[in-house]
Amino acid sequence: MPVTFRDIEQAHQRIKPHIHETPVMSSEQVNKLFGCELSFKAENLQKVGAFKARGGCNALYSMDAADLKRGVITHSSGNHGAALAWAAALRGTECTVVMPSNAPIVKKAAVAGYGATVIECLPTMEAREGTVAEQMEARGCLLVHPYDNDQIIAGQGTAALELLRQCQTDALPDIIMAPVGGGGLLSGTAIATKAWADKTGKTIQVIGAEPAGASDAWQGFKSGVRVAEQTPKTIADGLRSTVGVRNFDIMYQQVDDILLASEESIVKAMRLIWMRLKIIVEPSSAVCLAAIMENPELFYGKRVAIILSGGNVDLDALPW
Amino acid sequence: MPVTFRDIEQAHQRIKPHIHETPVMSSEQVNKLFGCELSFKAENLQKVGAFKARGGCNALYSMDAADLKRGVITHSSGNHGAALAWAAALRGTECTVVMPSNAPIVKKAAVAGYGATVIECLPTMEAREGTVAEQMEARGCLLVHPYDNDQIIAGQGTAALELLRQCQTDALPDIIMAPVGGGGLLSGTAIATKAWADKTGKTIQVIGAEPAGASDAWQGFKSGVRVAEQTPKTIADGLRSTVGVRNFDIMYQQVDDILLASEESIVKAMRLIWMRLKIIVEPSSAVCLAAIMENPELFYGKRVAIILSGGNVDLDALPW
Repeated sequence: MPVTFRDIEQAHQRIKPHIHETPVMSSEQVNKLFGCELSFKAENLQKVGAFKARGGCNALYSMDAADLKRGVITHSSGNHGAALAWAAALRGTECTVVMPSNAPIVKKAAVAGYGATVIECLPTMEAREGTVAEQMEARGCLLVHPYDNDQIIAGQGTAALELLRQCQTDALPDIIMAPVGGGGLLSGTAIATKAWADKTGKTIQVIGAEPAGASDAWQGFKSGVRVAEQTPKTIADGLRSTVGVRNFDIMYQQVDDILLASEESIVKAMRLIWMRLKIIVEPSSAVCLAAIMENPELFYGKRVAIILSGGNVDLDALPW
Repeated sequence: MPVTFRDIEQAHQRIKPHIHETPVMSSEQVNKLFGCELSFKAENLQKVGAFKARGGCNALYSMDAADLKRGVITHSSGNHGAALAWAAALRGTECTVVMPSNAPIVKKAAVAGYGATVIECLPTMEAREGTVAEQMEARGCLLVHPYDNDQIIAGQGTAALELLRQCQTDALPDIIMAPVGGGGLLSGTAIATKAWADKTGKTIQVIGAEPAGASDAWQGFKSGVRVAEQTPKTIADGLRSTVGVRNFDIMYQQVDDILLASEESIVKAMRLIWMRLKIIVEPSSAVCLAAIMENPELFYGKRVAIILSGGNVDLDALPW
């Protein structure tokens, strides 16, 4: 296993002074609706409005002076780009972000707002990676991959670690859920959770949720072979990328299941979170609750913790 | 003074098991924008989505068995109605809520959802009070006025008390702001804050904020004579009522200033809170920040705490 529980603990120590300890929220009305005890780790309230601040911060604070001098680059539909730009600014180094042309305007503006250079490309993985390679050659900067990277995985795993530490020992969740795009969050969540379960002797399932319109992780998980290319079609812009190699391996070994959710359920779940929890989440954050909506029998009577991934939404283009 | 600091402390003891201790939130980006240190008491995350749960709960838990047997009635544009309905359900008593016909659909639905009987009336204070009087006669139930009521004022004052307790002693605010409609929140806030300031020897100003389109509190505060009737025109549906008699007296004695905000600023401030704090607030909650936008020089370099009143918004009728 390339990333260990110890790496996640160390990442947490490293990034703690710079990130928020986000609250864990719940709603009696939502619990009644689903017949289970749901809690939501509100990473939409994290720095840069997404859990991605954790990985970006861990990557930048793991670099030495020579690395920092070169500057960093990444490709991102938005939140990882903002996180890296924010963390690079904290460390006083330059940052370039390659973004697909269909990324939300608000996310492009955020990346630029943190002082990074934004370069647009076509909305395919090939175009993203090709443009990054060109820019690395031109600028001599270091790639911080948005998910297929040990520091990123360890950083994202701190969300679950923090969540588990926030739970009373006698009220640990039966299930922890995280959305899956590239798999940084889900693989980090799995490592943190399974180690915690071992330590405490409590069985905790880790379940990923993915839009049916970008189901590469689900397909790979079911077949045992990673899907390397897809044409995603989902409103959940944060989950359009293809699962990374490292992420797939961890996921395949440690995640208990991956569930799919339709676009309709994602929008319904997003609206329910807005209405009942009174917090702003982006569509990607709603995919776990959407999967519960579509598979309620798997969750009846259980204690379920969901990681809400982010809250960066274009308020002028809401899906209702 | 009809309501004392002791009353607010006792109200807090009484309602604590039933309400949320809401978080105090902040955003570096928003601080930078205004050149002051802003914190937001997120009563939009309170039970029923508004601070009104505090007053409603205090009123119902102050009643004896004979009172409870009679049932309760009130008039409300929404949040107090929901709060009273919710508290009445906790206490197992009947609740009737007279609502102006222009109250947001989502608020009417919420009141009915908590099990109260909703009766519509014309959107004037006269119609509200007339309809309540008729219903009291018909039903024999007890009026719990939405703001001109000692238990309600004491209950609403617990928001500021809780906020002050959440602050470090060396980081008490220089200014506490609350929106003003009927004046329940602002008068309770003033009593709690001024007593706390006396106890700690710290000067804390209390400033109310009101929509320019419903400026009766401001007019009364400036002239010294309460305005008893107005035709409000504001998006801030929670602030359309006229300041109560008790509320005016307390406010006139203990509040340091009242500021006005335009509709345009209210919408801008609301959007800024959504974007930066990632929480859902209704227009009424945004009036304090809107007033800061219009009078930034009064706040430069100060530590300012704002009570966000609620988060019950019709997601299908957003003002942008």
